[in-house]
Amino acid sequence: MSKKLIAEFIGTFWLVLGGCGAAVLAAGVPDVGIGFLGVSLAFGLTVMTMAYAVGNISGGHFNPAVSFGLMVAGKFDGKDLLPYWAAQVAGAVTAGLVLWIIAHGQDGFSSAGNFALNGYGSASPGGYGFFSGLVTEIVMTAMFLVIILGATSRGVPVGFAPIAIGLGLTLIHLISIPVTNTSVNPARSTGVALFGGGKAILQLWLFWVAPLIGGAVGAVIWKMLEPEAYTAAEPPAVSDAPDA
Amino acid sequence: MSKKLIAEFIGTFWLVLGGCGAAVLAAGVPDVGIGFLGVSLAFGLTVMTMAYAVGNISGGHFNPAVSFGLMVAGKFDGKDLLPYWAAQVAGAVTAGLVLWIIAHGQDGFSSAGNFALNGYGSASPGGYGFFSGLVTEIVMTAMFLVIILGATSRGVPVGFAPIAIGLGLTLIHLISIPVTNTSVNPARSTGVALFGGGKAILQLWLFWVAPLIGGAVGAVIWKMLEPEAYTAAEPPAVSDAPDA
Amino acid sequence: MSKKLIAEFIGTFWLVLGGCGAAVLAAGVPDVGIGFLGVSLAFGLTVMTMAYAVGNISGGHFNPAVSFGLMVAGKFDGKDLLPYWAAQVAGAVTAGLVLWIIAHGQDGFSSAGNFALNGYGSASPGGYGFFSGLVTEIVMTAMFLVIILGATSRGVPVGFAPIAIGLGLTLIHLISIPVTNTSVNPARSTGVALFGGGKAILQLWLFWVAPLIGGAVGAVIWKMLEPEAYTAAEPPAVSDAPDA
Amino acid sequence: MSKKLIAEFIGTFWLVLGGCGAAVLAAGVPDVGIGFLGVSLAFGLTVMTMAYAVGNISGGHFNPAVSFGLMVAGKFDGKDLLPYWAAQVAGAVTAGLVLWIIAHGQDGFSSAGNFALNGYGSASPGGYGFFSGLVTEIVMTAMFLVIILGATSRGVPVGFAPIAIGLGLTLIHLISIPVTNTSVNPARSTGVALFGGGKAILQLWLFWVAPLIGGAVGAVIWKMLEPEAYTAAEPPAVSDAPDA
Repeated sequence: MSKKLIAEFIGTFWLVLGGCGAAVLAAGVPDVGIGFLGVSLAFGLTVMTMAYAVGNISGGHFNPAVSFGLMVAGKFDGKDLLPYWAAQVAGAVTAGLVLWIIAHGQDGFSSAGNFALNGYGSASPGGYGFFSGLVTEIVMTAMFLVIILGATSRGVPVGFAPIAIGLGLTLIHLISIPVTNTSVNPARSTGVALFGGGKAILQLWLFWVAPLIGGAVGAVIWKMLEPEAYTAAEPPAVSDAPDA
Repeated sequence: MSKKLIAEFIGTFWLVLGGCGAAVLAAGVPDVGIGFLGVSLAFGLTVMTMAYAVGNISGGHFNPAVSFGLMVAGKFDGKDLLPYWAAQVAGAVTAGLVLWIIAHGQDGFSSAGNFALNGYGSASPGGYGFFSGLVTEIVMTAMFLVIILGATSRGVPVGFAPIAIGLGLTLIHLISIPVTNTSVNPARSTGVALFGGGKAILQLWLFWVAPLIGGAVGAVIWKMLEPEAYTAAEPPAVSDAPDA
Repeated sequence: MSKKLIAEFIGTFWLVLGGCGAAVLAAGVPDVGIGFLGVSLAFGLTVMTMAYAVGNISGGHFNPAVSFGLMVAGKFDGKDLLPYWAAQVAGAVTAGLVLWIIAHGQDGFSSAGNFALNGYGSASPGGYGFFSGLVTEIVMTAMFLVIILGATSRGVPVGFAPIAIGLGLTLIHLISIPVTNTSVNPARSTGVALFGGGKAILQLWLFWVAPLIGGAVGAVIWKMLEPEAYTAAEPPAVSDAPDA
Repeated sequence: MSKKLIAEFIGTFWLVLGGCGAAVLAAGVPDVGIGFLGVSLAFGLTVMTMAYAVGNISGGHFNPAVSFGLMVAGKFDGKDLLPYWAAQVAGAVTAGLVLWIIAHGQDGFSSAGNFALNGYGSASPGGYGFFSGLVTEIVMTAMFLVIILGATSRGVPVGFAPIAIGLGLTLIHLISIPVTNTSVNPARSTGVALFGGGKAILQLWLFWVAPLIGGAVGAVIWKMLEPEAYTAAEPPAVSDAPDA
């Protein structure tokens, strides 16, 4: 397995273990729990820390919808798409397993329907319906891609992109946890659905379809915005990884 | 429509969808809601993320009072003022619509008087009167402009301005949400007032007048502070956008 | 008045209006209030934003104990100490007045003993005694100076110091609000004591004496740590302000 | 004592005083307390601020497991390991003492079993068993080392590492405070165990063994990822300290 795929595996592992782990283990502790705000911060920091740690190796996607959107925008080679997706899903499922093991160290814990699952309707944290979930996931993923494509463009000094992208994911969670528990990332949804079961499995298709649509929409929006000067010569930083 | 105006549209859309969205959807959830702290963080992160993503295209104002203050300070060309305002308001209203659609996916939701609206007197979250609201909006917008003008001056290395400006907006919300629900941005107030109605419409004039006054005051304060060396040659980074 | 003193006035004004304003207006709102965490963030962000905005003009002290500690460390000219102190206290008192005006726009508000005041014993938020308050203020201010002196030394790339220093002040508040309501800044204590009265006036001496001692202790600790290479030639960035 | 060891002493002192201090003094205050989210932020900010302040002097480890992991990865000279450990533990215990003094300024405070102690089983905040604690501490420390090694590698511009590493420690706390109260740092566990006593002493061995294993695992993971180009010539920034 190449270093790029190991990096995507590790980064997506950390995204799911950190973000979903904070949600499952720490969000609802009475009085001192971290709530949706802490969970939002946790998801964002997983991406920020891994983008600094291994972003230069793989590009730091950690998300099938990001890889797809970057491909649509012409910043990522389509022949790497499926290997990236496989590494991302494998990392997410491994994280789901580690979290499942840790969480079951507490007496009485059950992951059934209670494992940071994404959902709509009765499976939405706030009871939001299908259409709200669909719109939310598409719009949030689209804006996430605009942030990613802009922050890694030539207009921004090298080094700041992980801050913009990581805290962008925090922001997306601050808005949308009540609606779908926030996916914008099919691997994240898959990694916990396998352990939480029930509706999370039945509804999982939406958290593949909507983020992928959103990723493509975001790529199209960025292409409307991108100054011609940015695309003149060599590729941008996000795909500027050493061959490994 | 030029790329600059698309960038202002997208950025202001994100500011209102993200900041007001966090307020409407996530602030008041029992036990795990994000509260005023999470809403403050959300508003600031909308500006930080969009300043990184598209700031180099349009200057990253996303706010009629910011455009106006920059014009008063001589950093923004007055002939672009009205097109910028139009793009900002259009983005804000579009965000209001998208948020209205998402929020109505929850049974029993009503946006009447409950849509992250700005107000004073009985429409103030903490019941603060007109004069408190007026002073707060003027002072907060003035200090916001000082932060923007200083952080984009030659005294600061390129790349840090979005952090200072975004978290500056977070700080302004941490202080003033209880007073007016914090505007400092006429487009943001307008974008939700149209959907929340009632007093938000009647009081909307104040959230144009006070931020615009504040923007001008901030520009004047900055001109007292600005070292002469900073204004010697070419214009600062905030208006250093490629023609598009 | 020179630009340096205007910058210190504005910066300290913002520190007190922002930090104490968040505490007075937003901390204790039921359910959605920002709590000590939000107040901690607000204090830190006042310093971060002003350090970016005007730090290159005055050095960005905004605090008599910081000016004193920098003087002890040989980074600030003693002849400027009293003018800086005067500007800082004037900015703080002006902020106290503005906050007093805003806060009284809420029916029933009284600033007596309730205005983000620093205190010990029965005036401590958590009832901590005099000796705890003394130790806390000395140790916190000393570590604040170590952070300031280190982050503005040649060992750190230009541009990052406001992040380290601002979030350092956030950290200090996260630890010590329950003990003394956190001063580490005599101007901040003075600016609100005049409006809150009572014990805050009687105990104000401690919040001058302890931070000044702490500032000197921090300077001495830094001198033990500072690599000789850092002090070889020209002065560090913190005092690298243009004459104004 | 060399400047490197003084820097490690001061940095670890601040880590324990700041992180454990926030937990003991401010986390559980009714209504406005900072909760696990504030404690997580405090721990991270101790490391971020000290990494900026003294990181260039000692490398900024402040943690025996970090020193060990860096040694395993070939980034830290083994002959310095025991002196670093001694300085770190001494700083941590001194912080425990200062915190003990401050905390006892509140009537009725008892540190017995209540001093930000690490533990498992009945000593775990959420009642998580031994195996959960073991897995959590190993995985969290391993990922911490991946973040540290990646963020200080040549792939990241100088200056950003303290942000990635500090907020990485915040993230680790957001996930795992409920499980073990989060150690990932044997010095931190030791510094408070001596004052809290009871089970914290009996279980202290785990919070040496698990973080050290985790540190080594993280180093091995990084070596799988590290591009060959990064190891070609001179050592990375983390050990790029002036001799002192």
